[in-house]
Amino acid sequence: MHPIRLGVLGCGNVGAAFVDLVAQRRVDIASRLDLDITVEAVAVRSLARERAVTVGADVLTADPRAVVTSPDVDVVVELMGGVEPARELVATALKAGKPVVTANKELLANHGAELYAEAADAGVDLLFEAAVGGAIPLVRALRNSLAGEPVERMMGIVNGTTNFILSRMTESGSAYAEALAEAQTLGFAERDPTADVEGHDAAAKAAIMATVAFGGVVVAGDVHAEGISGVDAVDISMAARLGHVIKLLAIVERSEGDPPEVSVRVHPSMVPVDHPLASVRESFNAVFVEGGAAGELMFYGRGAGGLPTASAVLGDVVDAARNLRAGTSRGLGRLHRAKVRSIDESVSPYYIRMTVKDRPGVLATVAGVFGDHAVSIRSMEQDEVDENGARLVFITHSALERDIQATLAQLRETDGVVSVGSLVRVVGGD
Amino acid sequence: MHPIRLGVLGCGNVGAAFVDLVAQRRVDIASRLDLDITVEAVAVRSLARERAVTVGADVLTADPRAVVTSPDVDVVVELMGGVEPARELVATALKAGKPVVTANKELLANHGAELYAEAADAGVDLLFEAAVGGAIPLVRALRNSLAGEPVERMMGIVNGTTNFILSRMTESGSAYAEALAEAQTLGFAERDPTADVEGHDAAAKAAIMATVAFGGVVVAGDVHAEGISGVDAVDISMAARLGHVIKLLAIVERSEGDPPEVSVRVHPSMVPVDHPLASVRESFNAVFVEGGAAGELMFYGRGAGGLPTASAVLGDVVDAARNLRAGTSRGLGRLHRAKVRSIDESVSPYYIRMTVKDRPGVLATVAGVFGDHAVSIRSMEQDEVDENGARLVFITHSALERDIQATLAQLRETDGVVSVGSLVRVVGGD
Repeated sequence: MHPIRLGVLGCGNVGAAFVDLVAQRRVDIASRLDLDITVEAVAVRSLARERAVTVGADVLTADPRAVVTSPDVDVVVELMGGVEPARELVATALKAGKPVVTANKELLANHGAELYAEAADAGVDLLFEAAVGGAIPLVRALRNSLAGEPVERMMGIVNGTTNFILSRMTESGSAYAEALAEAQTLGFAERDPTADVEGHDAAAKAAIMATVAFGGVVVAGDVHAEGISGVDAVDISMAARLGHVIKLLAIVERSEGDPPEVSVRVHPSMVPVDHPLASVRESFNAVFVEGGAAGELMFYGRGAGGLPTASAVLGDVVDAARNLRAGTSRGLGRLHRAKVRSIDESVSPYYIRMTVKDRPGVLATVAGVFGDHAVSIRSMEQDEVDENGARLVFITHSALERDIQATLAQLRETDGVVSVGSLVRVVGGD
Repeated sequence: MHPIRLGVLGCGNVGAAFVDLVAQRRVDIASRLDLDITVEAVAVRSLARERAVTVGADVLTADPRAVVTSPDVDVVVELMGGVEPARELVATALKAGKPVVTANKELLANHGAELYAEAADAGVDLLFEAAVGGAIPLVRALRNSLAGEPVERMMGIVNGTTNFILSRMTESGSAYAEALAEAQTLGFAERDPTADVEGHDAAAKAAIMATVAFGGVVVAGDVHAEGISGVDAVDISMAARLGHVIKLLAIVERSEGDPPEVSVRVHPSMVPVDHPLASVRESFNAVFVEGGAAGELMFYGRGAGGLPTASAVLGDVVDAARNLRAGTSRGLGRLHRAKVRSIDESVSPYYIRMTVKDRPGVLATVAGVFGDHAVSIRSMEQDEVDENGARLVFITHSALERDIQATLAQLRETDGVVSVGSLVRVVGGD
């Protein structure tokens, strides 16, 4: 029996679930894998706060630095979140030759490169399955199963809060504010929902996905992120009429070019109803992967929550333990910075909603503006006329983002155009 | 650079795609993983037949035994299919200390236990990602990611032919025979479709899924298998009216008990339209996994085809190569025989269609027969009256299979019952 003693940093929602899960699964893991996994130390912010975890008081400590350097700790599990002191503690653990498992997307999306390099230098694992897609074994699939497979593109629903809100808007016709309030009541959204609804959480995950899939470092700041706060109930119902649903997608793709460029973005997207991503409802996550030989793959599951996240962390711990026993490790190594393509260069069909004055000649003027920027219109629908004017919805053929933005800028200045509303990229079109 | 020389057995559809893929991916794998993977030998049935593969004539041989024992072969890739001589060749390779990658579900579903034990004794890998779900990285997820997670149940669409046929019947209202003919024309079904449409192919995959997930050997003969040839267009449209679609599911679940029992079956199933499996269309495969901590997961992708299968095989080859370089292996070990629960003991709600004479009192008699066997009816609908009689559709509450079969047997003998048609288990009901 091979003993594996864990040093856990942080004991919040995920930390407490993880510590419990280790205790609960210990016997079965021992019998199946010949590994005796125990929690040796848990570093918490304050010893005074009462905790409902199944560890003795002697296991709790307020000194995380002692945990990461302790000779009695074989594997470090970082579940405290945030950048500092997590970054420094993880780096110290790796330097001390200890494998690290983390669920910290913010840390990896900003300081991943430095930490992957530390792990490579020390010859130990740095595993982070839970950082993207919670319980979904996506990172391992990208690192292992698809190692012989060049991924071309991934489109992911990687934020449960926004998927819950968009699902409610789609299924019950609620307005955004109403769906957000419901998500908050049910605990699917924070009191301050900014990080979720503005796409920042998804952007961090997109940076990690791109790094792992394409082998070049992408940081959170590289990611063009738009959230869902501008999505209107009208857009949801128009999408339905056009056979689509609106999802917040994190999209990473490899572009042609030498060196190849990587495009990484998060924005509301119109997905055809018969696409597998369209049926991902409520707070579930899913990542759709397009590869060369494997074709299309999708991974679906719970993207958040204490127990699903703890389960992914435990999977990584088992992997790290097996590698430790075998004296091996499988890191990403020293990575170069990826060449990231500007959002201006991305190409997609677009859905554009606007309100114009209800008078002759306006449509011709608007169509002329599209034409001036070489944006070709696939379909136009006039939806409704009220006291503000007539609501128009355009779907374009594939166009350059730069040309679309120039079109919108000119439209806002055009006489007869009351307002230019939503812009939603159409996925799987043309 | 670590050289890995492959000995490939079989050069049919998958074999040829695999040999091409290795050549195509060689440079990228070398640069990313420091492994130089080359095809050293390809054993074919006859050297006379012309082959469109990218290997020199000196690589082809008609002597598979020489390949599995050659000192110039590091990893054996078995893609010939069928039980013999594949079984003997794989066993010989393992005994000679060579890792083996295979896509052969028939071999594993019948002789897996003996081969896993050989691999464990020799301390080498026996990998078979492509045997279930083609390009979908399910087996690796069960072996690695979910190693810390007890899987409770898996429901899989693991046969592309039958999913294509059922999708056509659902989406265009075709009859079974018509949809089958279309599948044959498009190359999704064999001229003799028995192995697919009667559920034998899915049964072999179910046996492998159960073995990997629960760690006890299940063989193909343990699996209760029903196919789709009895599914009528009427059942498809009734299912739609009830908010369901009909899918052929391979279901494996762990039951309570000491020792725990395993239930493994393949049969047409009614799946609610908002279940993720319901949106798996055409010839795609997907496996829905229910675990303890991870919750619900689904893996979706191409279940067959030369290139997707070759991609999964190459993923395994990369894994085997890395393990070989690290001097390690990760086998299933020596497994005991699983205790398999009889289909008679399984519990589910049922959809039952029958035709009865259109006269007073018949419904009361039929309802009485259900009652005699303690089967409780949730809903009944009379669909249509024609010259044969009245068509009745019953949905039961959860009932024991044994009681349902006794009910059907008695109904067939009951005066006023013209015929008892389809029986479809309802998934996710009650």
